[in-house]
Amino acid sequence: MSTSAPSLAAPALREGAFGNAVELVCRECGTTRELGPHYVCAECFGPLEIRYDFPAITREQIAAGPNNIWRYKALLPVPDDIELSPNLEPGFTRLLKADNLAAELGLKNLWVKDDSTNPTNSFKDRVVACALSAAREFGSKVFACPSTGNLANAVAAAGARAGIKTVVFIPSNLETPKQVNSAVYTENLVAVDGNYDDVNKLASEIAGEQDGWAFVNVNVRPFYAEGSKTLGYEIAEQLGWRLPDQIVIPVASGSQLTKVHKSFKELIALGLVEDKPYKVFGAQATGCSPVSEAFREGWDVVRPVRPDTIAKSLAIGNPADGVYVLDICRETGGAIADISDDEVRDAIVLLARTEGIFTETAGGTTVGVLKKLVETGQLDPELETVVINTGHGLKTLDAVTDLVGPAATIAPTYEAFVASGIA
Amino acid sequence: MSTSAPSLAAPALREGAFGNAVELVCRECGTTRELGPHYVCAECFGPLEIRYDFPAITREQIAAGPNNIWRYKALLPVPDDIELSPNLEPGFTRLLKADNLAAELGLKNLWVKDDSTNPTNSFKDRVVACALSAAREFGSKVFACPSTGNLANAVAAAGARAGIKTVVFIPSNLETPKQVNSAVYTENLVAVDGNYDDVNKLASEIAGEQDGWAFVNVNVRPFYAEGSKTLGYEIAEQLGWRLPDQIVIPVASGSQLTKVHKSFKELIALGLVEDKPYKVFGAQATGCSPVSEAFREGWDVVRPVRPDTIAKSLAIGNPADGVYVLDICRETGGAIADISDDEVRDAIVLLARTEGIFTETAGGTTVGVLKKLVETGQLDPELETVVINTGHGLKTLDAVTDLVGPAATIAPTYEAFVASGIA
Repeated sequence: MSTSAPSLAAPALREGAFGNAVELVCRECGTTRELGPHYVCAECFGPLEIRYDFPAITREQIAAGPNNIWRYKALLPVPDDIELSPNLEPGFTRLLKADNLAAELGLKNLWVKDDSTNPTNSFKDRVVACALSAAREFGSKVFACPSTGNLANAVAAAGARAGIKTVVFIPSNLETPKQVNSAVYTENLVAVDGNYDDVNKLASEIAGEQDGWAFVNVNVRPFYAEGSKTLGYEIAEQLGWRLPDQIVIPVASGSQLTKVHKSFKELIALGLVEDKPYKVFGAQATGCSPVSEAFREGWDVVRPVRPDTIAKSLAIGNPADGVYVLDICRETGGAIADISDDEVRDAIVLLARTEGIFTETAGGTTVGVLKKLVETGQLDPELETVVINTGHGLKTLDAVTDLVGPAATIAPTYEAFVASGIA
Repeated sequence: MSTSAPSLAAPALREGAFGNAVELVCRECGTTRELGPHYVCAECFGPLEIRYDFPAITREQIAAGPNNIWRYKALLPVPDDIELSPNLEPGFTRLLKADNLAAELGLKNLWVKDDSTNPTNSFKDRVVACALSAAREFGSKVFACPSTGNLANAVAAAGARAGIKTVVFIPSNLETPKQVNSAVYTENLVAVDGNYDDVNKLASEIAGEQDGWAFVNVNVRPFYAEGSKTLGYEIAEQLGWRLPDQIVIPVASGSQLTKVHKSFKELIALGLVEDKPYKVFGAQATGCSPVSEAFREGWDVVRPVRPDTIAKSLAIGNPADGVYVLDICRETGGAIADISDDEVRDAIVLLARTEGIFTETAGGTTVGVLKKLVETGQLDPELETVVINTGHGLKTLDAVTDLVGPAATIAPTYEAFVASGIA
């Protein structure tokens, strides 16, 4: 296994290329390394993470920034002039008070953080924006990813706007609408005869062999992953610079949950919010619930599974950050739970009918797990709770096609309308 | 023809129910009328519009407001406490500098106002939010509309969140995905055996007969239409409180174009922007281009047509505000043009590949017309130009399905990748 990406052979990095980030640190053994296109520890093969040296940062400085994730640029591995580089300007999405859903679930104080209104309609625009900045600073020639959905859309769109060549690898059996969602942005959609694991393996191989290829979730992953912190920053700022008591987050690789937790700790350390306890909860679909299983069984390791669920964007059978998710949920007094595909579908309709938010299967999973956690008593209905919606239902329409439809079909007359009983 | 809606028999309106709005005025004869659920002049059957008595309003007051259309509440027919009523919180969408598209079209200074990231992915969330406020103040029991797409989504979603009963009427031959997009939010999707005109006619009949039904685009239309002004306010504010030199706007009923023009005039009158000339351009698809035809032919009237275009959300054959659109475009030195369906499709791909924005056919029409206006010399490439994208490509995927797709299909090996020539 290569411990760095030869494909991104270090050019001269400009001063301040990564803002307040100072080095890479192995999450397992603590070994440090200079900032660069590295993602695996040379000592122990553990994942590398970014360490910062933050100056004093005030709420006012942040509030004076743009209405997108760059208002938090001082907390991200990006240069101070990041707004000047063409990008999709994602983030600062709505945090909606969800009183109808709360009443339905028996909760007192509930918010939905709605990332379905990001530029390509999922939270992936946040992480891809940070990966794009890193690729730019590394002088990459190609911006790429393996993906079956949200990530492909985000990479193809962000790369188009940035004027960098994009190459997006997908399994060749992907449904046509999902292919179109990415192909519209890029000339280089590559269909691979194989499943997602095959596509992912090919991407890693290309990253290791080709010069100047930035695979967002492979060789620039440490920079990419930091983008998820902005979800946590926004929630805290939109609550009036306060952390919620409880937060429910979907778990695929587990990266988002670990980064939201990291963001809360950073805000506390910087004095931007009051230090207070909060509980972190993870959501999975039963058909791919290795982390939930480990939590339930009391294991310290996560046993890989073969995914079989409609929640495709959460279907990672061997989640890279699974053990860190276990640690965080246990440490904070949270939990991890999973629900069936039918419960996922029902939760999609529940969220749409109560709050007017149409979520994809990942959001259905998160809302459905929230419901289950209340029912099992694992989540306190009296405490302030935030649930994250990571993507848009237009991307997984099929999930609810059999569940909803016209209440009546009538002739085009007032009499027919009255007879229908709708009035 | 009924000149008011008996269905919304005036209850006692609370003080300040419509903010700084003071009365309704007929756009044709100037006859005034008290604020209420009226939409047609009792004297001449002309359309009623809202008149305000604005106090002094500062940029700072607006900037201190929320990151949605309610930052402009003082300029809308809504109460001062509008933020407290559950709504989708639409607006304040991205204004993106579009340098890649500009270079492609030979323009010097171009911006895209991108309304595809609104809560239900079109500008309709703006107008529906204002209609919802009016319905609430009128004490309406049902929130309804006839629609084939964007409006249906927006009404069903906004009504769900507001906790008001929604009823959405659609032609029964509407494709299943479009039905699902609305049915997910409402129990009362009513399929009508007929075309859109039949559905529309039925809606007007119900509005005239049933108590307490607020049809957003029928009996609360004067309030509804004002929501489009927020597009203009946002563009000016996001440009740094400055009007663009040229703006290109799609024309369906023509309401949006007239309201953006109205918003610019209001900003000038209030001293919020400098008074300066600006040109307004209208965009139609050739298959439904009655206003463009009238402009080209020098007519003062708009001859109705039978629509036949893929730009369904612009397919209004007898546009209510067509003559006002003609007046504005002529008066300001702008123009109206139309393009073929193939040009619409090409423009969708052009916008996606240059700026990472996936627009629906309406946006393809607007971008394609912008291209045409440059080519014909009707639009000055040296001047600062804004083009409005009103909706999301995920809603009209079929339009580009035959145009884009994988560049290659390969075996899952590095050798196959190299042989593909993508590298």
